[in-house]
Amino acid sequence: MTPEQIKQAIEDLIGTDRVRLDGEALDIYGRDWTKIHTPRPRAIAFPRSTEDVQAIVRFARENKIALVPSGGRTGLSAGAVAANDELVVVMDYMNKVIDFNPVDRSVTVQAGMITEQLQKFAEDQGLYYPVDFASAGSSQIGGNISTNAGGIKVIKYGMTRDWVLGLKVVTGAGDVLELNKGLIKNNTGYDLRHLFIGAEGTLGIITEATIKLTRPPKNLTVMVLGTPTMQDVMQVLKAFQSQVDLTAFEFFSNNALDKVVAHHQLQRPFDSVTDYYALLEFEAETEEVMDRAMQVFEHCMEEGWVEDGSISQSEAQAQSLWSLREFISETISHETPYKNDLSVLVSKVPEFLKEVDDFVAETYPGFEIVWFGHIGDGNLHLNILKPKDMEKDAFFEKCHHVSDKVFAITQRYAGSVSAEHGVGLVKKDFLHFSRSPEELAYMKAIMQVFDPGNIMNPGKMFDA
Amino acid sequence: MTPEQIKQAIEDLIGTDRVRLDGEALDIYGRDWTKIHTPRPRAIAFPRSTEDVQAIVRFARENKIALVPSGGRTGLSAGAVAANDELVVVMDYMNKVIDFNPVDRSVTVQAGMITEQLQKFAEDQGLYYPVDFASAGSSQIGGNISTNAGGIKVIKYGMTRDWVLGLKVVTGAGDVLELNKGLIKNNTGYDLRHLFIGAEGTLGIITEATIKLTRPPKNLTVMVLGTPTMQDVMQVLKAFQSQVDLTAFEFFSNNALDKVVAHHQLQRPFDSVTDYYALLEFEAETEEVMDRAMQVFEHCMEEGWVEDGSISQSEAQAQSLWSLREFISETISHETPYKNDLSVLVSKVPEFLKEVDDFVAETYPGFEIVWFGHIGDGNLHLNILKPKDMEKDAFFEKCHHVSDKVFAITQRYAGSVSAEHGVGLVKKDFLHFSRSPEELAYMKAIMQVFDPGNIMNPGKMFDA
Repeated sequence: MTPEQIKQAIEDLIGTDRVRLDGEALDIYGRDWTKIHTPRPRAIAFPRSTEDVQAIVRFARENKIALVPSGGRTGLSAGAVAANDELVVVMDYMNKVIDFNPVDRSVTVQAGMITEQLQKFAEDQGLYYPVDFASAGSSQIGGNISTNAGGIKVIKYGMTRDWVLGLKVVTGAGDVLELNKGLIKNNTGYDLRHLFIGAEGTLGIITEATIKLTRPPKNLTVMVLGTPTMQDVMQVLKAFQSQVDLTAFEFFSNNALDKVVAHHQLQRPFDSVTDYYALLEFEAETEEVMDRAMQVFEHCMEEGWVEDGSISQSEAQAQSLWSLREFISETISHETPYKNDLSVLVSKVPEFLKEVDDFVAETYPGFEIVWFGHIGDGNLHLNILKPKDMEKDAFFEKCHHVSDKVFAITQRYAGSVSAEHGVGLVKKDFLHFSRSPEELAYMKAIMQVFDPGNIMNPGKMFDA
Repeated sequence: MTPEQIKQAIEDLIGTDRVRLDGEALDIYGRDWTKIHTPRPRAIAFPRSTEDVQAIVRFARENKIALVPSGGRTGLSAGAVAANDELVVVMDYMNKVIDFNPVDRSVTVQAGMITEQLQKFAEDQGLYYPVDFASAGSSQIGGNISTNAGGIKVIKYGMTRDWVLGLKVVTGAGDVLELNKGLIKNNTGYDLRHLFIGAEGTLGIITEATIKLTRPPKNLTVMVLGTPTMQDVMQVLKAFQSQVDLTAFEFFSNNALDKVVAHHQLQRPFDSVTDYYALLEFEAETEEVMDRAMQVFEHCMEEGWVEDGSISQSEAQAQSLWSLREFISETISHETPYKNDLSVLVSKVPEFLKEVDDFVAETYPGFEIVWFGHIGDGNLHLNILKPKDMEKDAFFEKCHHVSDKVFAITQRYAGSVSAEHGVGLVKKDFLHFSRSPEELAYMKAIMQVFDPGNIMNPGKMFDA
């Protein structure tokens, strides 16, 4: 079918001006934040309703046209890239609040709603949507769910998965399913909702979601602590967790701090220099909670796990301590980093990190590693910086070798080769490091159940 | 195959004294708490390891023998009943702690561990396993996971689903899968772990689970509040939820309180008599939290949502207030109750409850209804008591008519016909009130993927 024929056929189904074929649209809607693959979609469709999406899916199935569901396109694994003549289904116009109920503390939205708008909506109701990450200003809730987005508050609030009370989806076979309907308790057979969460659009298209909201946090307080070793970071985590409900527990290495402070002309949080830093956040709801946190801090100092520390006295200070962690990614982007998103059991982090460090140091002595991540969840962002005198292509070639080895180490630690970024095109060749051949076979069989024509985001996650 | 042949074949595979054929074993291990169906298993097997379970499943698949996985057999939906010549796989001897890690705050146990033992283990480590319910002294963790058990702390801690970090399972096809391996963050394709949670043994047998633990609650404080209407109960819920992190929010009707007080010779919590009572629990960690709770209480009094209230000043008092709610089930068991376990959106509870009340009052004026439940989760336990002068058979026949009508009302409210008890044999004919024909078709297809021989708990949940 030519692009023009597709446009005609779909507009006959869902109305005029709902398909674009122009070069600008093909370029914008064919890519995500990965920028590795050249976008080459056949056409771009703009549904306005679940019925529109269903009509498009049924048309695609009948005509064997591959579909790529497209949200905010902020993914880092090329899950929403259309590089193979696909029809892209853009959710931008399905961005409305459908229902809100203050007693249930739940909101039903169309899948194209931007994360930040959902956060804002919750705030306006005196409530809180706690899943937060760098791309919240562009990412859409349907995409968040399809990739089970994580972020900086997982230690307290969990992943996107934990906030989805219900989903409306169109399966690859063209059926509309209403999954769980917003209920808290519903033990009536397999919970298909959880299959669609994190499925990266390979089973169908999420069109609506019912999202749980919670009360806003009170007096968020941030500590940055200087710690000599990764073992100490773990001791600090354990000590605080036993006394305080943490809302975040991040870490970064000293070279990360050096770079951020220099690049953004910030002050160091304190004079002492240590190999690692822990950033932790908690609700200092009452003075007693604050006293307890200070006691733990003093205990950590006495034990030698912490050499120095700084605590926020205001929201502004909390924000400025967060900057030390949040600016790392942007800061090192100027040094052509090779990035990986790994996780292992929290308790295995020090050993795992050392093994990766040692391997890189031995094999490529010139490579600088910058570590940071959501250490309270076992999620490490490994960044290898390009030596100034090395060509980019040569660097990335060496990094591919690093990747294979790092994933093999990850497998040995029973870890994940994609903690929060998903699989898409970027990680699909490495999926076997985290999932067994049997699991992969079951996954493919499940895909066949929901998408028998293999039209839903084909080639993403795995090849059918 | 005769029972003796099965015994011989399995003991050849996993060792002697691992299969029982005696009448006592057939009777004990063939039933659960429902006592509706007559147990009629063919044989009872007692595996000691995942390898044993795998050998049994492969043997059963080859020889087309139906298997019933059997935990603590405390289910209320006949999910673990063996009434059709099945081979029962008893997990009682797989009850060990395999691994515990204080930094991860996770414990890996065999599926046959009793819930209370897990709670006790956590306590001994200074930690807490918060999923709790009446049958915790007998139920096993594998069964809890297979039925996604709920209970009295769901409003804060969620269902069993929310505490499972990893599963080891043997599928109906005989494969061993290690699902999620205890990781907090792992976005590497479909999360098959969530399919096995709540699958009631129809996809395979859970042999090990990695369970998340948390810090123990501090100074749990209980309030019982007298509320004139169900709308008031909802206002009270909303008011408290905005200021205090509740660990429980239960309700019961005045006739429930009357019966408990009379039967157990307890004191009423206060003199005022109201149609409904709310029981709420929270961590009074600090005086400030307690002050805030008292302010909300006073606000509720001023608004007329609450007429009177009582608050625990000690652990003993907290326990005695809990008794008013927890003794209901046992108290009314002497009046031959017809029970249902329903849920709707929390906000729909008053309207739904009134509609059911009105229907029963109009159709069967002699029937007394006792309501109680986990109202903070929208989970209502509907109990209809047998009139003293009515024969049991006639009563249950009329109740079947009530059931059909109540489920139809539940469907109209987009609710669940089994909030926490599961489907099993008891609810399978009513599953269509909560799941669409399309959903049921997908569920059956998924079952085929994991259990192509249809040997895993056949006839439970639905017919293949």
